[in-house]
Amino acid sequence: MKTTVGAIAAMVEGRLLRGDEAHELTNFAALDQADASCVSFFGNAKYREQLERTRAGLVLVPAEVEVKADHAGALVAVANPILAFDQIVRAYGTLPPPFVVGISAAAYVDPEATVDPEVSIGPNASVLRGARIGKGTRIGAGAVVGEGAVIGQDCAIGPNVTICQGCLVGDRVILHPGVVVGADGFGFEFVEGRHRKIEQLGIVRIGDDVEIGASTTIDRARFGETVIGEGTKIDNQVQIGHNCLIGKHCIIVAQTGISGSTRIGDYVVLAAQCGVAGHLTIADRVTFGGRSGVISSIDEPGGTYFGYPARTLKEDRRDAMRVKQLGNLLKRVKDLESRLGHAEE
Amino acid sequence: MKTTVGAIAAMVEGRLLRGDEAHELTNFAALDQADASCVSFFGNAKYREQLERTRAGLVLVPAEVEVKADHAGALVAVANPILAFDQIVRAYGTLPPPFVVGISAAAYVDPEATVDPEVSIGPNASVLRGARIGKGTRIGAGAVVGEGAVIGQDCAIGPNVTICQGCLVGDRVILHPGVVVGADGFGFEFVEGRHRKIEQLGIVRIGDDVEIGASTTIDRARFGETVIGEGTKIDNQVQIGHNCLIGKHCIIVAQTGISGSTRIGDYVVLAAQCGVAGHLTIADRVTFGGRSGVISSIDEPGGTYFGYPARTLKEDRRDAMRVKQLGNLLKRVKDLESRLGHAEE
Amino acid sequence: MKTTVGAIAAMVEGRLLRGDEAHELTNFAALDQADASCVSFFGNAKYREQLERTRAGLVLVPAEVEVKADHAGALVAVANPILAFDQIVRAYGTLPPPFVVGISAAAYVDPEATVDPEVSIGPNASVLRGARIGKGTRIGAGAVVGEGAVIGQDCAIGPNVTICQGCLVGDRVILHPGVVVGADGFGFEFVEGRHRKIEQLGIVRIGDDVEIGASTTIDRARFGETVIGEGTKIDNQVQIGHNCLIGKHCIIVAQTGISGSTRIGDYVVLAAQCGVAGHLTIADRVTFGGRSGVISSIDEPGGTYFGYPARTLKEDRRDAMRVKQLGNLLKRVKDLESRLGHAEE
Repeated sequence: MKTTVGAIAAMVEGRLLRGDEAHELTNFAALDQADASCVSFFGNAKYREQLERTRAGLVLVPAEVEVKADHAGALVAVANPILAFDQIVRAYGTLPPPFVVGISAAAYVDPEATVDPEVSIGPNASVLRGARIGKGTRIGAGAVVGEGAVIGQDCAIGPNVTICQGCLVGDRVILHPGVVVGADGFGFEFVEGRHRKIEQLGIVRIGDDVEIGASTTIDRARFGETVIGEGTKIDNQVQIGHNCLIGKHCIIVAQTGISGSTRIGDYVVLAAQCGVAGHLTIADRVTFGGRSGVISSIDEPGGTYFGYPARTLKEDRRDAMRVKQLGNLLKRVKDLESRLGHAEE
Repeated sequence: MKTTVGAIAAMVEGRLLRGDEAHELTNFAALDQADASCVSFFGNAKYREQLERTRAGLVLVPAEVEVKADHAGALVAVANPILAFDQIVRAYGTLPPPFVVGISAAAYVDPEATVDPEVSIGPNASVLRGARIGKGTRIGAGAVVGEGAVIGQDCAIGPNVTICQGCLVGDRVILHPGVVVGADGFGFEFVEGRHRKIEQLGIVRIGDDVEIGASTTIDRARFGETVIGEGTKIDNQVQIGHNCLIGKHCIIVAQTGISGSTRIGDYVVLAAQCGVAGHLTIADRVTFGGRSGVISSIDEPGGTYFGYPARTLKEDRRDAMRVKQLGNLLKRVKDLESRLGHAEE
Repeated sequence: MKTTVGAIAAMVEGRLLRGDEAHELTNFAALDQADASCVSFFGNAKYREQLERTRAGLVLVPAEVEVKADHAGALVAVANPILAFDQIVRAYGTLPPPFVVGISAAAYVDPEATVDPEVSIGPNASVLRGARIGKGTRIGAGAVVGEGAVIGQDCAIGPNVTICQGCLVGDRVILHPGVVVGADGFGFEFVEGRHRKIEQLGIVRIGDDVEIGASTTIDRARFGETVIGEGTKIDNQVQIGHNCLIGKHCIIVAQTGISGSTRIGDYVVLAAQCGVAGHLTIADRVTFGGRSGVISSIDEPGGTYFGYPARTLKEDRRDAMRVKQLGNLLKRVKDLESRLGHAEE
């Protein structure tokens, strides 16, 4: 983007409280990351200190704000700084490419695939035999939709995604680049000194309104289905093992792994880099802090857990505190020993 | 699938002990995950309790089983429930697509590549100059076989896999979607304030009967070879650094990372999310629990290790127990202090 | 490779101190990994012990070296063993494929993309509308350059890489296979029981001379830019969240994750499997040991931190030592209790 303080003020119908209309702006940023080239906004009183210290070239502020006399950048008063900022971001930001109906001449669509007339299929994408793709769905360049896979309506399947044979994807699902849905689960029997493959003949079923981040992998079931419930959002580089049942409206943050056959309730939150062992059951609305290691089931809904093995915040802090106080404890024991030496004399 | 209790009983030549022949079945599941739409099986006495509580629409049971009078679903007695269940899964499950000899018209095979007449190469796959592909091998859609790479017989190279220049893949190897074999190792020299790249001129050699999970990455050697030994099975999102030598018949579970130049023996098991430092040697048949952090070599074969830094189960549990007992220890010291106060009076 | 002791000695103009000129050599390896088929080198006195025990078929040594009488393999004396070894590796190693100017007939380049005449674009690569690619840049097979993305000069974009719409890549950047640049950041608002997507309208900007390992993912900013500073080197399977600002000349090792809006200084080192929470600031030249969990900002430049939560090496070792000594502490308290029992009598 390339604009000016004056142009921004005009666009959001704001009032220039301070600053030079001709000052050039080329970027957006939060208050604490902004420099003189950036538009920023002050939308929440808890960032008051950041407002005082920001180097932003322009800050959108509420009309009633008071700012120090030596504030560096321009200030533009608006009714709602958050909405005004969104308006500018939307005007100047990098929007997703528009949906263009059509199948690229450089794509491969098998004659035995069933594709709605209103899809968008990018170059070098492959839609294999028996696959079905619903209306309004976009298949990115280089993506592969496997044999008999079914994708619903209004989905955005990113570039270089792989959806393997027979897997089912709901409506309005977003799969970011590099996602792999339906690779074989990891199952072997040890027979005569070798690991013999256990065939993985189930599928993955992804509910409506699910979003899955770049390079996340979700394994097909050994039999039956690995399920990602409606509305669940999964970040990048998450691994979900075969036969997992993930509930609805969960949040699973980056680099978390969930081992096979684990059942996660609805509205569960797993922060980044968690690990969940296999064959567990986690109740609804449970939250795990970053890096939690979950090695037993949790029956009670709604709790918050931390650490490895995962425990309540209270327990986690208590254990950490006790380790921290060990030096002090050692000193007290030494002191006791020395006093007891005296007492015994 | 869409079938009935009666049809399943007939297929496996079983005897209907209880239930409605017309009940509809659409899925498979383990006893604890099954609902009324599912076929399940009771093949191991240790799941007795699950049998009592299952909501499965049909359970395959051994002829001699005794079940509570109020058991909900159908029961079908067979000689071997595990084999009968496998038979049903195979009949109704999602089988891998059949091997069809031929090169897709939408694939690119370099004129200087050498490809056996009996291969299957999917659309938008790229087989580059000097590559060689053996009989019975399948190259998935969008996969890339780099310059001079050699792939043996009867391999299944998944969609969007990348095998980089010069790497060697044995026979009957399975690479799941998104695997990267032979990217450069991570090696730099710090010279005058900048990291200067150390060229990575070795390769990756993958032995026969290896299976590698989705989005796993195995780096080429700085010189010589990074080796994955025969029969080793690697799960999704594993990272193996340059010049590692992984032994035969190992199991490496998801999201584990092994740093450069480490040598892992045969039959080693690394559970999920382990980390192994570089330049270590791990003896044969060593097992590491999930999340182990391995920072020193292990010379003795056959042990089991846990935690960070990795230690024996006994040590790991003892340390955990001691931290748990810290509250009690603190109380005892307080008590001593108070008594000693008295004693001194 | 297939050569002999004599041929290697001649190539590096070395002097055969010991061994059979006709002995066959087929590989390279470090001293501790070499067998009789390998060329190796002794270039640093600290590997003296490895020299004594190596099974290498040929070792390049400095002229003045003294070796045990029963050393197994051939020894060839040269002025500088490191340089001589590099010469051999370069002659026999697997070099990157040569840069061949041209666009593969099997690639897709949008008519509205701007591509320098001197680029190399592999088969099944897709260069989408409005993308720009600079002179001397190589786009690997199956890679996708999104709408309006800009790539500088002399870059190596690996096979199956995805660069999403609008992202900016500097000069001499190396992206290894499977890298995803510019997928949406992970941002949602919880509204009436559902997670509503917050649009991610910023980009990723990658500085000059950056190298990024296989399957690493770098998310686009919510607004503005996610930045990877000049000269920074990132290993495989690293995750960098939206709006992160990574400084110049950093080293970020495999499987590390950095949460959104965190600002990392210059020359920061993150060893493997670290996790950094969101919205933190890390000062220049800070180093984190493997698996560090960073949950608060670090203002002081140049320190080294370990563990979770990350602390100084001194603190980390002290805490570990104290836990190790708990058994001893317990014994001392028991002893005190027993003595105090006596004292009270």
